[in-house]
Amino acid sequence: MRAGDESRQAQPDCLAIEEPLEIRLAHAGPDGLRTRSVSITMRTPGHDPELAAGFLFSEGIVHSPSEISRMTATGPASNILRVELDASASVDLKRLERHFYTTSSCGVCGKASLDALSISGCSPLPDSGARFRSDMIHQLPRALRQAQLAFDKTGGLHAAALFDASGNLLSIREDVGRHNAVDKLTGAEFLAGRLPLSHSLMLVSGRASFELMQKALMAGIPVLAAMGAPSSLAVELGQEFDVTLVGFLKAESLNIYSAAWRIV
Amino acid sequence: MRAGDESRQAQPDCLAIEEPLEIRLAHAGPDGLRTRSVSITMRTPGHDPELAAGFLFSEGIVHSPSEISRMTATGPASNILRVELDASASVDLKRLERHFYTTSSCGVCGKASLDALSISGCSPLPDSGARFRSDMIHQLPRALRQAQLAFDKTGGLHAAALFDASGNLLSIREDVGRHNAVDKLTGAEFLAGRLPLSHSLMLVSGRASFELMQKALMAGIPVLAAMGAPSSLAVELGQEFDVTLVGFLKAESLNIYSAAWRIV
Repeated sequence: MRAGDESRQAQPDCLAIEEPLEIRLAHAGPDGLRTRSVSITMRTPGHDPELAAGFLFSEGIVHSPSEISRMTATGPASNILRVELDASASVDLKRLERHFYTTSSCGVCGKASLDALSISGCSPLPDSGARFRSDMIHQLPRALRQAQLAFDKTGGLHAAALFDASGNLLSIREDVGRHNAVDKLTGAEFLAGRLPLSHSLMLVSGRASFELMQKALMAGIPVLAAMGAPSSLAVELGQEFDVTLVGFLKAESLNIYSAAWRIV
Repeated sequence: MRAGDESRQAQPDCLAIEEPLEIRLAHAGPDGLRTRSVSITMRTPGHDPELAAGFLFSEGIVHSPSEISRMTATGPASNILRVELDASASVDLKRLERHFYTTSSCGVCGKASLDALSISGCSPLPDSGARFRSDMIHQLPRALRQAQLAFDKTGGLHAAALFDASGNLLSIREDVGRHNAVDKLTGAEFLAGRLPLSHSLMLVSGRASFELMQKALMAGIPVLAAMGAPSSLAVELGQEFDVTLVGFLKAESLNIYSAAWRIV
């Protein structure tokens, strides 16, 4: 129902669909097949295998597409995705039980969150040689909006998009959750064997958090551009791991928070 | 670093602080004091006890402020909050192990998410008699922005605010995470013994998800107004539990998705 000051009228509205997705891992161990639930997330249905692959990769559970032998939607509403791992996959299921943001040295803090990335094997992104013109970057929000057909309908979806250094749109995904949109985007590239994405830029429609920067780092994406604000810890990650972070991206202006040398 | 088309200049920027917070529960059981970590969330430091109380209440772990005997910040960066529960508290720690969105009947789906609320004892909100004028509601985004001092500085914080039926601002909280802003807001009211908030309206600066509607329902707040879009499951929750959901709230227009009779 739409209500203005003067009038109230009932009309159909197109809503962003939000439904839970449970990700279950099935893995052959020494004592037979073990199945366990590893995540429940509220997501917009569609591209679920990509979402699961992107999530498992960015959490460090799987490292190459060959470690996933099959993904099957189950349950009455297809809201359970069963991910079968290859018997050869060396999967550290303990990672799911450990908290990613804590180390024994200092408990839990921003520094520990960054240290945890190093401990997980993340190192600063090497210079792939890719450079990104700022006048090209200023065009991206418009390109994203044009591609984001669903946005105009619901206004309720976060978007993540991948561009090459010339500003060509490579891929776009949407979701009610911004981390899900990024997992769907990087998961598709992961499954296609195209990681690391050393010559790409990822644009997100909202704000830049630590978690989104972590996903960019894991996928080897050298530039994360956000239309909204970055958080302090997102900036620290960018500075420590040489991921270029652009915030408040508009047609006329942008801020660069880390590894500014990639923007020319 | 701020870069326009013509110029690039370095200047200080005020960032929204993002730091992890670990919530640990300490509870005297039959075999002595047990401590366990129940949550790690990325949050903006400040109002941590309120955040923890709001989280524990909306997850159904605690039901009255007397069940919390003490909250203490620990760890080098004060990013661990130890919550001591009163020995008399009947705490269902199993709730933390169960997934809130699943029931045995149908696995995991939107319907199951709604059913899980009923199973947890949630019933439709009774009519407290409170009515909210739409011309008053149209003024709230401006009131929120005026109160949101930090917003102008960082642009990176979500806000949640509580208003009475006359549009008076009762309370406001900010955070990098929208669920945290709501937990801080409702947690403060919980600790002050003011729940249920049967005559209040909660305004959120972003979108309305299932999770935010769940928190409004638990706190007995009859109207959730969002400046952004609602999700499908947020609307379904509103319709099933008689929580009024307002979306796309602007000075000139708003949409009402459920329990429209509270808006006059």
